[in-house]
Amino acid sequence: MTATTEILRPASYVYGTWHTAPDGQTLHDAVYGRPIAVISSEGVDFAEALRYGREVGGPALRKLTFHTRARMLRALATYLLERKEDYYQLSLLTGATRRDGWVDIEGGIGTLFNYASMARRDLPDERFLPEGKVERLGKGGTFVGRHLLVPREGVAVQINAYNFPVWGMLEKLAPAFIAGMPSLVKPAPQTAYLTERVVRDIIASGLLPEGSLQLVTGDPGDLLDHLEEQDMVAFTGSAATAQKLRVHPNIVARNVPFNTEADSLNASVLGLTVRPEDPEFALYVREVAREMTGKAGQKCTAIRRAIVPRDRVEEVVAALRAELSKVTVGDPARDDVRMGALVSTEQRERVRATLDALKAETSVVIGGEERELLGGDREKGAFLDPTLLLCESPLTARGPHELEAFGPVATLLPYDTLEEAAHLSKMGRGSLAGSIVTYDRAEATELVMGMASSHGRLLILNRDDAKESTGHGSPLPQLLHGGPGRAGGGAELAGLAGVKHHMNKVAVQADPTTLAAITHEYVPGAEVREDVIHPFRKTFDEIQVGDSLLTHRRTVTEADIVNFAALTGDHFYAHVDEIGAKEGIFGKRVAHGYFLISAAAGQFVWPAPGPVLANYGLENLRFVEPVGIGDTIRTRLTCKRKIRKDLRPGETRPTGVVEWHAEITNQRDELVATYDILTLVERAPDASDDLTA
Amino acid sequence: MTATTEILRPASYVYGTWHTAPDGQTLHDAVYGRPIAVISSEGVDFAEALRYGREVGGPALRKLTFHTRARMLRALATYLLERKEDYYQLSLLTGATRRDGWVDIEGGIGTLFNYASMARRDLPDERFLPEGKVERLGKGGTFVGRHLLVPREGVAVQINAYNFPVWGMLEKLAPAFIAGMPSLVKPAPQTAYLTERVVRDIIASGLLPEGSLQLVTGDPGDLLDHLEEQDMVAFTGSAATAQKLRVHPNIVARNVPFNTEADSLNASVLGLTVRPEDPEFALYVREVAREMTGKAGQKCTAIRRAIVPRDRVEEVVAALRAELSKVTVGDPARDDVRMGALVSTEQRERVRATLDALKAETSVVIGGEERELLGGDREKGAFLDPTLLLCESPLTARGPHELEAFGPVATLLPYDTLEEAAHLSKMGRGSLAGSIVTYDRAEATELVMGMASSHGRLLILNRDDAKESTGHGSPLPQLLHGGPGRAGGGAELAGLAGVKHHMNKVAVQADPTTLAAITHEYVPGAEVREDVIHPFRKTFDEIQVGDSLLTHRRTVTEADIVNFAALTGDHFYAHVDEIGAKEGIFGKRVAHGYFLISAAAGQFVWPAPGPVLANYGLENLRFVEPVGIGDTIRTRLTCKRKIRKDLRPGETRPTGVVEWHAEITNQRDELVATYDILTLVERAPDASDDLTA
Repeated sequence: MTATTEILRPASYVYGTWHTAPDGQTLHDAVYGRPIAVISSEGVDFAEALRYGREVGGPALRKLTFHTRARMLRALATYLLERKEDYYQLSLLTGATRRDGWVDIEGGIGTLFNYASMARRDLPDERFLPEGKVERLGKGGTFVGRHLLVPREGVAVQINAYNFPVWGMLEKLAPAFIAGMPSLVKPAPQTAYLTERVVRDIIASGLLPEGSLQLVTGDPGDLLDHLEEQDMVAFTGSAATAQKLRVHPNIVARNVPFNTEADSLNASVLGLTVRPEDPEFALYVREVAREMTGKAGQKCTAIRRAIVPRDRVEEVVAALRAELSKVTVGDPARDDVRMGALVSTEQRERVRATLDALKAETSVVIGGEERELLGGDREKGAFLDPTLLLCESPLTARGPHELEAFGPVATLLPYDTLEEAAHLSKMGRGSLAGSIVTYDRAEATELVMGMASSHGRLLILNRDDAKESTGHGSPLPQLLHGGPGRAGGGAELAGLAGVKHHMNKVAVQADPTTLAAITHEYVPGAEVREDVIHPFRKTFDEIQVGDSLLTHRRTVTEADIVNFAALTGDHFYAHVDEIGAKEGIFGKRVAHGYFLISAAAGQFVWPAPGPVLANYGLENLRFVEPVGIGDTIRTRLTCKRKIRKDLRPGETRPTGVVEWHAEITNQRDELVATYDILTLVERAPDASDDLTA
Repeated sequence: MTATTEILRPASYVYGTWHTAPDGQTLHDAVYGRPIAVISSEGVDFAEALRYGREVGGPALRKLTFHTRARMLRALATYLLERKEDYYQLSLLTGATRRDGWVDIEGGIGTLFNYASMARRDLPDERFLPEGKVERLGKGGTFVGRHLLVPREGVAVQINAYNFPVWGMLEKLAPAFIAGMPSLVKPAPQTAYLTERVVRDIIASGLLPEGSLQLVTGDPGDLLDHLEEQDMVAFTGSAATAQKLRVHPNIVARNVPFNTEADSLNASVLGLTVRPEDPEFALYVREVAREMTGKAGQKCTAIRRAIVPRDRVEEVVAALRAELSKVTVGDPARDDVRMGALVSTEQRERVRATLDALKAETSVVIGGEERELLGGDREKGAFLDPTLLLCESPLTARGPHELEAFGPVATLLPYDTLEEAAHLSKMGRGSLAGSIVTYDRAEATELVMGMASSHGRLLILNRDDAKESTGHGSPLPQLLHGGPGRAGGGAELAGLAGVKHHMNKVAVQADPTTLAAITHEYVPGAEVREDVIHPFRKTFDEIQVGDSLLTHRRTVTEADIVNFAALTGDHFYAHVDEIGAKEGIFGKRVAHGYFLISAAAGQFVWPAPGPVLANYGLENLRFVEPVGIGDTIRTRLTCKRKIRKDLRPGETRPTGVVEWHAEITNQRDELVATYDILTLVERAPDASDDLTA
């Protein structure tokens, strides 16, 4: 146990200052029950904090592009990673082992890294995000539409749960920040001292624009009364609190988006086909034990219901007994301890009460006896031994599907058919996560399809993916974290979807030239600019969206087709077999599609060395009309959009991606082929390159 | 005026039967105030209706693929279009002109056609929808993830407004139906007789699976008390009613998604650069007048606030006076009438009361005097003349930004700078639609960026798009219909987004082979099947996802590069200039990228006529490693997914699209290029072909 002599005074960071109240709520450590911190938000002006976020943080963030925000987030992640040991020390006080702390601390910082990479890879270097394709809204092509996403002009209020004081904050902050929305973080009181410590470092780093992050440590007071239409709330915690908050009159009156992640009664299904000697059986047992005891079972994604074939119940119980017997309990600071304490003795009493209620419809098959405690205080610390219940009639029971013991507790539910297993999983009325352990792909498919409507995430675990699997309980930045019904109906993470969640989507309707001007992307039908300088002789900085080249013409001859077939080995009948081609869909021999795009390159490429370094990709190629012998083609190449790329470590030549729209037409001005080419183009170094070098 | 001698008795259609109550609320026509219908839902068992939807309609719909549902929707649209004159007759009774009715009736049926096409073009012929790319979750590639969408297993309860009794129903029904969710429609009482008439035809047609559409005509009783977690509610109507319903305890407790479209105080901005002699000036005046008087101003998207440069106010008023003087008012059945009546005298009194409240901060500049009525009853009919108000101090006034007179009423708001114009538009605190009239693209861009955060749709109107523009007030199936804050925070239409809104998104994590089995799409790293039969010799029906071909090898020679340059005319230095290439990014001469994919085709194409008719496109091409002289390439081609295509009218050869994943590797097994090829492949005729022929 870390020696903590002083009482911590975690403060609030609002409107640019640290705010501490003279008195407040005393928090105790989870392991020995000693007082460790006093928190209070008394005196915080919540209306002013929201105003400050809206008028200082928001405008500062909205001035930056996605890429600049991403670079800041990456720098911040690096900064925090260097200070992680400080967080691990505080984390032990919450009852978490080092392994539990890893998920919270390094998982949280990893989420920052992940969003920083994603933003630079998948978002433009812009302040807005065009989404989806350009929709043609009239036959003449003079009226088109497209969706744009822009940051909401309010504050993202983030109300977090006590179990992941670091990850819980950072997984909400990252997508909001990338989107361009300032955050106001309200951690749960029990572990707010750890959140505060991280925020203190973030503010001290000076890496984020002032106003983009505020922190309320303690009671949220009248915060919700001051929300406005452009603000939003993301809540993680109990379903009961979520329901109370989401009907707050001001939230309802102003249609403030309210996103909820609530604990759910997540299920893990052992497949009917799995025999005790299969690797999947051991994987199942290990996963259930790990989910029961990791973070002392205080995870909203933990397995609460283990759904197993009826004739495997005894074997599963025996194997789980063996597995759980290895779980040592005590002071998480000790190396020999595998499971620490719940967050507080109040929380332990709540879990005990729920356990008692569950016993009405279940029997205890593992647990009950008190284990040896390796350090920590049995009375003042918040320890609870792993407990497995068995519900013999899960189709009619209600408790196991409704009552959540938020600790190291799970219930075994026997089933007879796959349909029944899926039905049982859905009796939880909506879950954040579910898992299916089987090596039989038909069984996995049937269970996924049966369970999908009521889950936010489903893991299929088997011998092939076990080694790399991140497990039943781990949300990942790339994938949805959320679930319908009981799980709150919310959506977090899921890669860019988490960013878009903080933006307003607007459909913009205009003529093509105006739409191109607004979105910084060429729109078919928009005005183009032709220049005496060949576009491939311009640098990334010189090229402008709409720069265009109409090439010379080329007549496609029989010799071209013959030579192309000979050179490539592609002797498809439609090109080389007069008889077959006549009976084919074109009714005649036609040029190879690849010949056309190759000849088009021959038309538009500038052969000498220049700023265009390489053609590295191609998208959206469609062959529209066949080209026969004697047809004459020409190509129009137009700059569609530009994506600046950061210099990577070790690189010396700054570049950007230029996407060109190409259209090949024939002598009748009919479109023959349309596609987009991706080129790597040199650019001048700029200030942002230094940041990342 | 249509002679209506009998009193209509619109019924409810629930749990497979038509239900009429003996007594109920009497409705009057909008033009003469004569009693026309009696409605009541007394005796309807709402719990049973929801259960029926969930247990009969839902399972029936979920058995069908997206394409089958789309074919049904198209057949239904055709069926309804043949009966449109019946609907126009009833529509006149609601006070709507033929032009107003066109938006409602043919606009609604058009939405069905649109969703039917979109589903067949953009969705797979499956019961679920894979979304986004496959995410690699581990370095070894054994653990991957992807999002899947499946239909929610509940009922989509659709509560509609009175102003578009046909479109309002069909624009919600179409995406729900395509998604695979049954609908329960609750139209507003005032015009429920028209909705009921259409539903009666739909049910009589037998074209939709039983249970997929139910109708409650009259009071919704205890309907909301019986909603469950998988149900959802889509509401269109007043903000006040929306707020009342969305905090319904059962909706809150079960996290039932509640989507709101509320009337908003939509703005139209005349650009600072527009002079009275410009075409945009006339376009602005026409658009404001049309939005004020179309549907007698009873549109949730109508222009309520006309934001104009301060020094143009007089000219705008004069031009609007001239324009509005042409608007004849009276019985909409008469050819010489341009504007009909509000829906009811109660509604007219509400608008008058709001008008009176608005006058506290505005003055009447047009209207006030009573116009000649061309038919209809001035007292018993619900007529109201167009009224234009002027607010001299719009930055400090509240009424024009808060009070909505849901009739032919708008307020002029003068502005001085573009920033001020955008700010005024946002004082409405969230709008469904906005418009900007200018031919200056910089001005349009500045206004769009200033207004985007608080709008669901923005139209830029100018001389280039005016002819094809669908106007400020028209939602389109392809584009978002919804808006933040005051507009309800909801989202409808927006193409496939409207469909996805009715589905649950679940992240599936598995090994590649299992993920491929679940999604019916090849996943890189998944097991493949190699066959002695070349995959290009198989029909669409015979090809299976995962069928794979590893080709023979080919050594790329200097002669290949030289010949390819000579044949295509692409003499880029990286291929043909030893000196330039050495200084370039590859450090040596390399093969043309297009040569590689052409040679790969030469490796995998089956040259003789067969089921593969054509390569019509290519996606996701990336050149990963350069190929130099002496390198040896080979190609793996694997069936990635199959998309069955309907026979179009006139076509005789049934086909499908087969997407192949191609990977070119070199002698060191390094990936050289990766891409996806789209081929058109013959298939056997099936039952669905008859449906569409």
